[in-house]
Amino acid sequence: MGLFSRAFLSSRTPSRLSNHSKLILPSSLCAAKPHHRNLSDAPNYPVGGAPSFMRGTVFWGPPNSPLTIEDFHMPCPKAGELLIKTKACGVCHSDLHVIKGEIPFASPCVLGHEITGEVVDYGAHTDPGILKRYPIGAHVVGAFIMPCGSCSFCVKGQDDLCEAFFAYNRAKGLLYDGETRLFLRGSGKPVYMYSMGGLAEYCVVPAHALSVLPNSLPYVESAILGCAVFTAYGAMRHAAELRAGEAIAVIGVGGVGFSCDAIKNSLGAEMIIMRDRKDGSLHLATAIGGDQTMRNTYERIVQKVQEITGGMGVDVAVEALGNPRTFVQCTQCVRDGGKAVMIGLAASTAIGEVDINRLVRRQVKIIGSYGARARQDLPKIIKLAETGIFDLSAAVSRKCKLEEAGEAYDDLNKGSIIGRAVVEIM
Amino acid sequence: MGLFSRAFLSSRTPSRLSNHSKLILPSSLCAAKPHHRNLSDAPNYPVGGAPSFMRGTVFWGPPNSPLTIEDFHMPCPKAGELLIKTKACGVCHSDLHVIKGEIPFASPCVLGHEITGEVVDYGAHTDPGILKRYPIGAHVVGAFIMPCGSCSFCVKGQDDLCEAFFAYNRAKGLLYDGETRLFLRGSGKPVYMYSMGGLAEYCVVPAHALSVLPNSLPYVESAILGCAVFTAYGAMRHAAELRAGEAIAVIGVGGVGFSCDAIKNSLGAEMIIMRDRKDGSLHLATAIGGDQTMRNTYERIVQKVQEITGGMGVDVAVEALGNPRTFVQCTQCVRDGGKAVMIGLAASTAIGEVDINRLVRRQVKIIGSYGARARQDLPKIIKLAETGIFDLSAAVSRKCKLEEAGEAYDDLNKGSIIGRAVVEIM
Amino acid sequence: MGLFSRAFLSSRTPSRLSNHSKLILPSSLCAAKPHHRNLSDAPNYPVGGAPSFMRGTVFWGPPNSPLTIEDFHMPCPKAGELLIKTKACGVCHSDLHVIKGEIPFASPCVLGHEITGEVVDYGAHTDPGILKRYPIGAHVVGAFIMPCGSCSFCVKGQDDLCEAFFAYNRAKGLLYDGETRLFLRGSGKPVYMYSMGGLAEYCVVPAHALSVLPNSLPYVESAILGCAVFTAYGAMRHAAELRAGEAIAVIGVGGVGFSCDAIKNSLGAEMIIMRDRKDGSLHLATAIGGDQTMRNTYERIVQKVQEITGGMGVDVAVEALGNPRTFVQCTQCVRDGGKAVMIGLAASTAIGEVDINRLVRRQVKIIGSYGARARQDLPKIIKLAETGIFDLSAAVSRKCKLEEAGEAYDDLNKGSIIGRAVVEIM
Amino acid sequence: MGLFSRAFLSSRTPSRLSNHSKLILPSSLCAAKPHHRNLSDAPNYPVGGAPSFMRGTVFWGPPNSPLTIEDFHMPCPKAGELLIKTKACGVCHSDLHVIKGEIPFASPCVLGHEITGEVVDYGAHTDPGILKRYPIGAHVVGAFIMPCGSCSFCVKGQDDLCEAFFAYNRAKGLLYDGETRLFLRGSGKPVYMYSMGGLAEYCVVPAHALSVLPNSLPYVESAILGCAVFTAYGAMRHAAELRAGEAIAVIGVGGVGFSCDAIKNSLGAEMIIMRDRKDGSLHLATAIGGDQTMRNTYERIVQKVQEITGGMGVDVAVEALGNPRTFVQCTQCVRDGGKAVMIGLAASTAIGEVDINRLVRRQVKIIGSYGARARQDLPKIIKLAETGIFDLSAAVSRKCKLEEAGEAYDDLNKGSIIGRAVVEIM
Repeated sequence: MGLFSRAFLSSRTPSRLSNHSKLILPSSLCAAKPHHRNLSDAPNYPVGGAPSFMRGTVFWGPPNSPLTIEDFHMPCPKAGELLIKTKACGVCHSDLHVIKGEIPFASPCVLGHEITGEVVDYGAHTDPGILKRYPIGAHVVGAFIMPCGSCSFCVKGQDDLCEAFFAYNRAKGLLYDGETRLFLRGSGKPVYMYSMGGLAEYCVVPAHALSVLPNSLPYVESAILGCAVFTAYGAMRHAAELRAGEAIAVIGVGGVGFSCDAIKNSLGAEMIIMRDRKDGSLHLATAIGGDQTMRNTYERIVQKVQEITGGMGVDVAVEALGNPRTFVQCTQCVRDGGKAVMIGLAASTAIGEVDINRLVRRQVKIIGSYGARARQDLPKIIKLAETGIFDLSAAVSRKCKLEEAGEAYDDLNKGSIIGRAVVEIM
Repeated sequence: MGLFSRAFLSSRTPSRLSNHSKLILPSSLCAAKPHHRNLSDAPNYPVGGAPSFMRGTVFWGPPNSPLTIEDFHMPCPKAGELLIKTKACGVCHSDLHVIKGEIPFASPCVLGHEITGEVVDYGAHTDPGILKRYPIGAHVVGAFIMPCGSCSFCVKGQDDLCEAFFAYNRAKGLLYDGETRLFLRGSGKPVYMYSMGGLAEYCVVPAHALSVLPNSLPYVESAILGCAVFTAYGAMRHAAELRAGEAIAVIGVGGVGFSCDAIKNSLGAEMIIMRDRKDGSLHLATAIGGDQTMRNTYERIVQKVQEITGGMGVDVAVEALGNPRTFVQCTQCVRDGGKAVMIGLAASTAIGEVDINRLVRRQVKIIGSYGARARQDLPKIIKLAETGIFDLSAAVSRKCKLEEAGEAYDDLNKGSIIGRAVVEIM
Repeated sequence: MGLFSRAFLSSRTPSRLSNHSKLILPSSLCAAKPHHRNLSDAPNYPVGGAPSFMRGTVFWGPPNSPLTIEDFHMPCPKAGELLIKTKACGVCHSDLHVIKGEIPFASPCVLGHEITGEVVDYGAHTDPGILKRYPIGAHVVGAFIMPCGSCSFCVKGQDDLCEAFFAYNRAKGLLYDGETRLFLRGSGKPVYMYSMGGLAEYCVVPAHALSVLPNSLPYVESAILGCAVFTAYGAMRHAAELRAGEAIAVIGVGGVGFSCDAIKNSLGAEMIIMRDRKDGSLHLATAIGGDQTMRNTYERIVQKVQEITGGMGVDVAVEALGNPRTFVQCTQCVRDGGKAVMIGLAASTAIGEVDINRLVRRQVKIIGSYGARARQDLPKIIKLAETGIFDLSAAVSRKCKLEEAGEAYDDLNKGSIIGRAVVEIM
Repeated sequence: MGLFSRAFLSSRTPSRLSNHSKLILPSSLCAAKPHHRNLSDAPNYPVGGAPSFMRGTVFWGPPNSPLTIEDFHMPCPKAGELLIKTKACGVCHSDLHVIKGEIPFASPCVLGHEITGEVVDYGAHTDPGILKRYPIGAHVVGAFIMPCGSCSFCVKGQDDLCEAFFAYNRAKGLLYDGETRLFLRGSGKPVYMYSMGGLAEYCVVPAHALSVLPNSLPYVESAILGCAVFTAYGAMRHAAELRAGEAIAVIGVGGVGFSCDAIKNSLGAEMIIMRDRKDGSLHLATAIGGDQTMRNTYERIVQKVQEITGGMGVDVAVEALGNPRTFVQCTQCVRDGGKAVMIGLAASTAIGEVDINRLVRRQVKIIGSYGARARQDLPKIIKLAETGIFDLSAAVSRKCKLEEAGEAYDDLNKGSIIGRAVVEIM
């Protein structure tokens, strides 16, 4: 694919802005692509020697059915969107919930929602400011919450509540014009997108969800910035509003829990207590006392937090597993007036139980947090990453190929991945 | 009792500060009162012609057992505390939970925690600033959360989380030196205090829990300022941090729900939807459209809120019933990113159920709120009351005598008191 | 003009979205308009029977030189921009500062920055969401701070700090592609835009600066929503973060001071003290005591505030005159820890003096505030206006024609306009 | 003095709480001490073998007059106050302002307001909780703002605005009963207290101003925790509300500026730029690029900040010199919407000049900050100090004896003390 990307760069960068290059058909053609019709003889995108097709993984809908690799038409970005040559895509629990049928999602779909990649094209009529910020060839990170930029939440900067993202993408697997960008080669059958559908060689991402990845940061390890780190940052910065000197406990040491540890340092918080999901051991890291690892039963996490905090509880506890049992523990770990921040997605029917009287009398706050605010936070997260505050290499505990993505989800399901697996795409 | 209070005033006000009047025994004697010992021959407090005994209602402990009226030694305030001649005391659900055995509390005890009264004495060595603020004869309101003023929360102004209040009063029925101020006449048997134990002719209240009641406000109706209004104010000012233009729904039209309506106006919020617990009807009050009353089933409250808000939900929903069913409804009424504020105490085992994935993805906040911050909020609440913003007369739907307190709780239990009943004491 | 606007509506609304109507040349042509070249024989915009020209007032640059009315090419909106048939435009002190040479601005220019009007066209490639929100024929209000929507402040919702607005419009009189939309008829000479250049029959406004004006609100009186009310709202909502029960003093009773009074009510604040610039009298409005008017010298305003607040000072004082003398008074009116919010623009060299030690020891906050946040606040302001909270008719104390705009600025300069003058345009 | 302190400990600790020890006369005797009368034959405090007199430095009032060392009666604490054997006291600019006559203060007085010491006694009727927290023999730090704990600001946790502290101590040199605790030996002449009057062998401090100093922290270096660090912490925590990732510039590298640097690290802020007052050089410390020192003229500090921040300015700039010139620079260093925090006290007539239009249009915030909140912040500051985050040894650049205090102020005045001088007292 090296030639291809050079071709993109050499032939188009300068000309694109001044006139409409012949290399690329206007996006309006894309919009005309009929759903459920045979597109095999339609004018392909892009044209002019660049590849017209790509490979991507497909999840077909039946719970626990295998992912397959299929050929797609090259996806076509519209105004405000970029075509990204995917370099890496993280393997995350949210995808697994969809695969297991625990969280309903449109199918067939391409999963994968934390990516890095290279800008190779953009939609016609895209604002020149976007082109300037993300020139062809730029390295980028994509956030899994892709804000529309204009709904009632986005105009207040609350990208994490973007109405269009929830209404179109999470509810229907589409982008915000009500259409997907993914069509199977041959049949032209539309395929839905979980976020940008990152488990494919190319993906279309709204510019609002992107931020430039500096050369000093590697593609593969940086993929987790767009979900694992992003989620942790949002939880601690916006939901917990963590302040210097506060004590925090994090339940769960997957990709998100791992990131919380690093972010906590950047926020000056005091202590972190992490819980290993796999073997029930607790891993403690304190600012003063260094790291400790304890084997422990589930039941003892609250007791342990109480011991460490002199019976007070922590200012902030974060639940990163999406487990009803740890949901309750999370509320029990916090001090009077403290914040229990829930970031773990569960099966869609899962219920968290709350002791009403303790909540009322001790003024506990239970706060849901899904991610961060792409436009304002992703640049900051990348800046933090540049300072080396995250040990991304340690966080990414496995790398695999696109063909091995299904296996990675299997292992994630078995609990045999500590930290994060990342799919290297090209 | 008129003579008595004149006697207090004439004989003691001037002399008390300059020398230790003979009229009153030093507080240290009070501290020496042995528990569970016969005090019938102990030197009585106060002496010098003032009454040495008082009447108060006692709850003996067995669930639903009747309240009885007993004779007590005149309670003896210590440093920083005032002796209040109780004028009125509200009849509140929290007491009822204790009577029904749903919330454990030390017994025997005197219930009643929202009072007005007149200052008749103070503990020795009380700070002169307190005496100046609350001279003998002053009318006062007492807040049910009585802050110690010096714990780690009180020094931050978070009186509503006062450690001493929870550790000593709520957990043990005592004041913060680990002792009660209430002893039965004759046996000298100690009796526990729920807050100040307001259902008695006199009560001892830490000065931090008091605020002066201006002459323009009546004793009886103003009793509800210390709990019903206080709780609503805390929920809306501190927990919800209600801002102008926000839409709010309140579930429950008891004393607290009633107050929320008035406070909402003072905060410039937009709309209120109240739910009548008794007959399942919904009562709506909107800033624009006036009031509407609808008969409705429990199930439809969420649907109704969605209709009124165009499917969005309210910014803030308040649950004032302590009911697991309305707990869930409260979380369902709020918009994405909105706040579900829980202020209703439930039976001590009650569980509120939370849809984990909606909480996470829609970033709902569930916030417990128990009351307000006595030292900073009670003066503001009284100032608001002076502007006439609360229709206190409408809120107080029944008045009764001390002997009828038990009956009032029965009726509250049956749901036949809309608004608040207040016991007129003297 | 009735025919014209019908023509616009009938011929273009349905067709515009599906194909490029012949009625309107693509916006890219506009971009090609050469600066400083004769455009008299260029293809005019719009074509097809609609007017190709409009009239607008021009300020030519020399301090205090008269405004003249000139013919312009019909301005041509670009992507994301709307063409508005101006209905009304307020006469504001900021324009006057430019006319008097006190605030430097590019010239020749069209002043006028608080408008209402009707949507008559939009730029090619404008996002369909914008077209849906502002269909042809819609009544709109325009805010004087026109946010770009994508700078580092806009993505956080801080439209009032929009980098592009300051860098292009305030610094250069242009829109955010670095070009004006205004060209004189005949010469084709470019004319700069103060905000949207509202003192003309048509104006181009970025959609981000607009909000729909409901039919219940009149064009003329509603013009002040986009600056006078907008500025007051921003000052009180974002800069002062005014809370219920806070005492506020406003110095200055022009359009902005007037609006503060109404907004204060909506925010539940307690008291307002306004100072009449003209005759030095103080006008007091208190929540409790009703309105009072006092004739007073400048010097006594601080003393008066101290008297009313028992020597404490107000929580928030607002300076709406841009006067160095009242700047100092504003800082002196606030209580320890209070906020002095400055919203009045002064001559560009004006200095406000601060008593350093009082600032430090009494922790005074001096906060500049220029306006509000168009995308999130303007809809709320209009909603408040719908409730009747602003007495817009009383605020608009004079109405005049486009030809009389110069005279209105003269009278504003002389201090003979109390409240706001509004130019009725069509 | 070792014997003495053992005597205190052995003879009094156990007995004091159970009965009124004969060792100490009741505090009421202290209150009876006549002003301006000869006390040489009065019953001395304390009695029983402990010293009855102490030495302290006196500033007599005329500007720049020398400090002298005088004998005093042993100061007598009242309820809620502790007698501290002073171990160390910092030499601070605020004292110097008083000595130079730039800030008016009652005279004769004992200066010195940042101390460490050992608890040797407490006032009668002091709350048992205080005795428990600060037992005889405890090591303590004293904050220069000594909160009363009960004014309208203290009850909200805003100790830094304590009304009594300003009304009694700063305005009159007294404690909050309107009396001093300092009387000259022989003449009995009262001497005023600047804060606790720390430049003496003993001092009386309200318990609210104290926090326990752990054994791991040395007396001398820790003295600066109560003012230099305290002031920096308050500025950054409460005034600036500094958040992770924010850029900050500090103008002034005295004790306070020095502390800001350390605290910034604890808060996760990004960059600090410090300015050396003495030789006009700029010292830069950035999170990424390490430290740089540049020789520079005053004028270039703003330019330098702009360079480093790419023309944007910093989020927070702190002025720690109290200089009208750097006041202006501080406002110019901040970005649009940024915070200029002023903590340096100036001569009492000093004026800071503000560019009104930049303040308004760029929404600059100028925030005065005097110190921190003793009850909630001092314990946190000490906890931070325990982590080693402050290089206290480096900050304390000179140590001297009580007799050399005057000389230290001279050198401070000449600018020859970089960092902080501390007087070692015993």
